[in-house]
Amino acid sequence: MGESEAVESTLWADVRPDASRRLTMAALEAMAEHGYHGTTTREIADRAGMSPAALYVHYPSKGELLYQIAHVGHESLLEAVSSAARSGETPTESVRGFTHTYVTWHARYHRTARVIQYELRSLPRARFREIVALRTRFDMLVRSLLEEGAAAGEFAVDDVDGTALAILSLGVDVARWYSERNPRSPEQVADLYAVLVLRMLAARE
Amino acid sequence: MGESEAVESTLWADVRPDASRRLTMAALEAMAEHGYHGTTTREIADRAGMSPAALYVHYPSKGELLYQIAHVGHESLLEAVSSAARSGETPTESVRGFTHTYVTWHARYHRTARVIQYELRSLPRARFREIVALRTRFDMLVRSLLEEGAAAGEFAVDDVDGTALAILSLGVDVARWYSERNPRSPEQVADLYAVLVLRMLAARE
Repeated sequence: MGESEAVESTLWADVRPDASRRLTMAALEAMAEHGYHGTTTREIADRAGMSPAALYVHYPSKGELLYQIAHVGHESLLEAVSSAARSGETPTESVRGFTHTYVTWHARYHRTARVIQYELRSLPRARFREIVALRTRFDMLVRSLLEEGAAAGEFAVDDVDGTALAILSLGVDVARWYSERNPRSPEQVADLYAVLVLRMLAARE
Repeated sequence: MGESEAVESTLWADVRPDASRRLTMAALEAMAEHGYHGTTTREIADRAGMSPAALYVHYPSKGELLYQIAHVGHESLLEAVSSAARSGETPTESVRGFTHTYVTWHARYHRTARVIQYELRSLPRARFREIVALRTRFDMLVRSLLEEGAAAGEFAVDDVDGTALAILSLGVDVARWYSERNPRSPEQVADLYAVLVLRMLAARE
């Protein structure tokens, strides 16, 4: 396990039992490299040092492994950005905190982010609906921050829904292009993006 | 072929002979749905109404089909945004034109955009290098517009490279979430994004 995979492994520390955690991390690495459809359960089991039969003891399907990744990933991200948004004393500070944390997360955990942002359509149908419901909470959080800021006279936002989507979208795409080979740290990317997003809102700097 | 596929087919009108064009469009539809790794040459041939053997007459591999899509797609996009950028009389107008065209293209041709933005790593190595070289022209174009605008006193940009990447990144991600089910037209999304990008540059509105 390289240093960057070690960073990513912190996300999965609470998955139990140990065999489930190893399988989840193996699935994550394989799917981040080759996509959901390009990954076989045999490859996942191999990476985890287990047999395909042992995999099925823990997960009935590849789709359920994807669900585990999507569920844990979204919950981790939602907790991080909610906490960052709450810690701001003004809407401007809350948007800055939200953006910084959202972007840092997508850069630092870019493997997980790629899987949970680009492979969702491969989830089993009921699982897909569950994750989509979780995802609406990100939209609601950003929209409410923009509405608060506009009401407080801190932001000029003509189109709350479209602007909220643009902010989230800018963060998501970091997972596409960021890697450890990038000369910027995740926090440096986040510093710039927090400034750009506050400018998008015409916030007073 | 539905209306939206008909819109997308305009991109491929110049691919000759007819069988190559049908195969390219079939590959595009399949890869946009299931990804490169989730698409077999048999499925592509089936969609084009041809045999797998007939496919290999025109393309020696699935990778060469992906290259055809990436090559035609990038050239189309580069021509469209270069023309839009040139038609602006000031850097502000050029950035507005660039952004509007870039975003409209990613929404209108979201299937093609998804394939050329998310499946590049599956290109054969020499083809990958060729497409990456083509992609640097987008970075160079946006960077030069930002530098011109900053020199003319129209923009305040502290980090030209990072901001240029953010502008491109915001447009790319439109391909992930946009579809014909969206209540906004491609042009409506582009109208909003042109405003947001000029705000990111602190351009005078």
